[in-house]
Order: sequence, then structure tokens, then C-alpha cells
Amino acid sequence: MTIHVMTSPDWKLDIDDPDVELTTWDFESPAPDVPVDLLVAPHVTRPDIIDRVRDLGAKVLQLGSIGYDAVSRDLPEGLIVSNAATVHETATAEHALAMLLFAAREFDRSVAAQRRGVWEEFQTLGLADTTVLLVGVGGVGSAIAERLDPFEVSLIRVGSRAREDERGRVHATDELPELLPQADAVIVVVPHNENTHHLIDDAFLSAMRDDAILLNIARGKVADTEALIKHAGRLRLLLDVVDPEPLPEGHELFSTATLITAHNGGNADAMLERMKNVVLRQIAAMKNGEPPINQVLPQ
Amino acid sequence: MTIHVMTSPDWKLDIDDPDVELTTWDFESPAPDVPVDLLVAPHVTRPDIIDRVRDLGAKVLQLGSIGYDAVSRDLPEGLIVSNAATVHETATAEHALAMLLFAAREFDRSVAAQRRGVWEEFQTLGLADTTVLLVGVGGVGSAIAERLDPFEVSLIRVGSRAREDERGRVHATDELPELLPQADAVIVVVPHNENTHHLIDDAFLSAMRDDAILLNIARGKVADTEALIKHAGRLRLLLDVVDPEPLPEGHELFSTATLITAHNGGNADAMLERMKNVVLRQIAAMKNGEPPINQVLPQ
Repeated sequence: MTIHVMTSPDWKLDIDDPDVELTTWDFESPAPDVPVDLLVAPHVTRPDIIDRVRDLGAKVLQLGSIGYDAVSRDLPEGLIVSNAATVHETATAEHALAMLLFAAREFDRSVAAQRRGVWEEFQTLGLADTTVLLVGVGGVGSAIAERLDPFEVSLIRVGSRAREDERGRVHATDELPELLPQADAVIVVVPHNENTHHLIDDAFLSAMRDDAILLNIARGKVADTEALIKHAGRLRLLLDVVDPEPLPEGHELFSTATLITAHNGGNADAMLERMKNVVLRQIAAMKNGEPPINQVLPQ
Repeated sequence: MTIHVMTSPDWKLDIDDPDVELTTWDFESPAPDVPVDLLVAPHVTRPDIIDRVRDLGAKVLQLGSIGYDAVSRDLPEGLIVSNAATVHETATAEHALAMLLFAAREFDRSVAAQRRGVWEEFQTLGLADTTVLLVGVGGVGSAIAERLDPFEVSLIRVGSRAREDERGRVHATDELPELLPQADAVIVVVPHNENTHHLIDDAFLSAMRDDAILLNIARGKVADTEALIKHAGRLRLLLDVVDPEPLPEGHELFSTATLITAHNGGNADAMLERMKNVVLRQIAAMKNGEPPINQVLPQ
């Protein structure tokens, strides 16, 4: 039994299995005219991806992202869409810690002094003993919480609904007005959907302390860009994602945000090994006649 | 029994104890003419500190630093010197992680793109799945190892002598020639003494991989500045400490190092709470007629 896999070059896939025929396609140019069972999409999911792959006859579309808000619900009959859960959590969570520590130790100031060729000593609040509010307790949120464990912070977690889990209390989103004023840093890492669209709005930002850190590592549209600009002087904004993306050259956020990292959050080598693992598991499922892993659509 | 405490303003000390008389002194101007039992020095230990305090008649000099290489061995009769173990580990270790993640996620590149007002997506090696060589397994080294735990790295540790501890193998310094070529990042956090002076020399740096990360959070004189400059193009240097300090304006390292943070490593609010705790314990020891905590001299 031959499994036909067509993959984006993003993943540098190399599969050592005589039963697998591997073709590379960039999802931009016309697709190679070969049979395809499993499609492996780029690590950023383009909004028109379903139209791109509609006529290829694939059984499974393996997305390269965890989020699938960009995927049209107008699926071809029989196509199953899987997301890239387990692929990006590691890289994205470490990126979040990198951004948080950059702000906590005020490396923007160190970098500016270094550029001027000046030795500038200063004291920072630091991260230890501060209160971090984590909004989002899915895969990436959990990976962030795990990495925060040794840093001696008070962690408050917020999910879509109040509950207890193995780490303790998860607060509901409607508790944010009381929680936001307590935080030295707020990390937002929720999926983008109709409930989280513009979650970070004027009211959200107004509830935050002066000089507090806001880190958006979720999706650009989870924040209202106008509100971000309004509060940029009072708060410290660290944005891996923005709306629109790419941010137009010279956009006001470039000069007012503390750090912009151009959606590089998940884009580290760690994702390659972990995506290969997902693809191998999809292939094994096909061979064994089992349902695909990580299915997100049809729901 | 009244305990006379004279403290540097660095610590913002406020001690609520009717038996304690607290005086503030900057260790620069002439000392206030009051009795003194316990002297609490600034967080950076000046080389001439013993001369400064020689005639004050204090029983204990509580240093503000962990390192005491700057303290002259020509101690006045009866003066005990204690270091600031437990005060700086938290802040310094978190600073080390901040620097390591800055390099691993190439934030220097993000910052430069942002300054130009340009959205620049790129992939990084990241930290997960890489090999980190930690040279130094004392208090700060252990705190760094603990913070690295959730980051999915291969950690190799080096101490002054080979041994096993609760984390496993500690390699000896003389194994460095075989270990350095394996590392994606090298973190140096040893005390400065005659054995570690210029540990980071041309041979050390030559043994490192192209584009590897070198992080000096130990003391400036642990590295040979000329050797650092020689390898700055091939390696990525992140320096919290340099030789000389302060680094003269416009020094070549400012333009060739990936990041210079001007000895801000331990200088975070976390140190204040932890130093207060040390001072309270010194006071309690004096009241109880017990020996001082953290004594380092006389040895």
C-alpha cells in the first residue's frame, strides 16, 4: 500500500519509508499532477487554503498551524482537516518566555544603550515576585505555565470558563476586569474566534497598571489595533502577532511597541522534528485504517 | 540590646524592630559618626571597601555581592565578612535565561527590523532540542539549571572538579576542550579567582561552533577581552560583565557583541526582598550570640 504525501517545503520532510511517495509543493504554484492522500500545509495557514487544495482529492489536510480560524468551513466532501497540535507549543511557549523576560529585564533599554556605545546600569522590577496573568490555558498556555514554574512568579490563569485543573484554579474570562489590575504582565494566548475577537480592547487595556507588560502571542485580531496604539505610551506592548499582518512598513506600532517579532513565535527548528512526528503518525493511521490524529474539521 | 546597622541605600531597607538602630551610608562620603555592629554594603562590591570600613569598628561586613574577589585579605582584626548568597541567584539566573532566549530567538534581528519599521519573518534554531553547556554549578549555576528544566534542552554541566550530584554528572574544567564543540550555547557563571581568570580565552572560543552563543554572566575578568573581540564575528557574544567595567564609551565590544547588559544581571527588585531576609537573619544571629550567616572571610 502506497501513501502519497504532498508537503510544503516548510517542513524539510524526509521520510524513510518504502510505502511513502513524497512530493513537495509550495501551495502557491499549480500543484504537481500526482495522486495525493495526505497534504501537509505550510506553517502559516493561508485563508484560501481550502480553495487551493479543493480539487486534489486528498483524504487528509494536515495544517501546519494550531489555529484553523483561517480555514473555510466550505470543505470538499470527504476531506478531513487536522491541526498541528503538539508541533508549535514548545517553540511558541519559549518565544513567549523570551518576550516576557526581554520586557522584565528591559532589554529594549540595554539594546538602545549598546547602540549608542554607552554602558548603562539600571535596576529593573524583574520577573521574580511579580504577578503574571495568563489568558489562555490550551496547549501553548499550558506550555507557558510549565516554563514559568521555576521563575518564582504568582501566576493567575484565565480560561473560557471557570474550573479547577491539575494546576489549581482557572478563572473565567468575565473575571478579567478584577484580575487585570493585579498583573505586572498579561500574556494572551487564546485561539481567535468570535468570542475572542478584540478581547484586548480599550476596556481591557484601561484595566491594566501603568507600565504593565502586555504580550500578544495569540492572533493579531484578538487585539484591537486602535486600542493598542492608544495605550502604547502607558503600557509596554510586546506583539508577536498584529492586525493587519504583515504590518505595513512604518506603521505606528513599530515605533510605539516595546517589541514586535513578526509572527516568529512558532517558527523555530523545534517545530520541524515535532511536525515530522505528526506526519509519521498520520501515515501510520492511514496504513492501519485508523482515523486521522488531531482532527479539527469536520467538527 | 541595641543592634546598630549601617546600610547602603541600595537596599531600601526598612526594619521594624525596636532593638535595631538603622543608619544609611553610601560608602562614598565620610561615614556617619555613630556606633555600628553590622555594615550592609552596596550590591556591587568596590575594590577598596575594606579601607572604607576599616576604622568603623563593625563586627560584621555584609557584602551586597556573592563574589568577594574584590575584598582585600588585609582585614581589620575581628571583622567578619559575609557574602550575599541567596540574594542574587534568582535575579541573575532569570537574567541569564533572558539573554539566552534573546539570542536563541534572534531578538537582535527583530529589534533591528522594528527600528527600520519593517515586518521581518524568519526562522530561528530556537532553544528546544539544542545543547547548552553550563560552566559553573554554584548557587547561580544551579538556579540557571533549574530554570532551564522545562525548556527541553540537553544540559551539560561543568564544575571545578568532576563529580555526581542530584542532577547527575558534573564534568571537570579540563574536559572543556571536548565539550565546547558540542554546545549551541555556553553559559559561564563561575566565581572570578586565579583558576578562572581568562578562562574564556582564544582556545576556549576557538573550540566553539560557528554562530554558537557565549553568555558571560560571571565576572568580566573571566574572559580575555582581546579574545572576545577576535571571535565576535564568528560567535554570538552576550555579555552582562566585561573587562574593564564600565566599558569605555564607543568600545569595540559595543558594536560587535550581540547584547551587552551592563552588569544589570543581579540588579532587579527580587534582590531587595532577599537581602532584607539576609540582614534580618544577621540581626537575629547577633541577638542570639550565634555566628554570622554566609561568612566568607576570614576563611
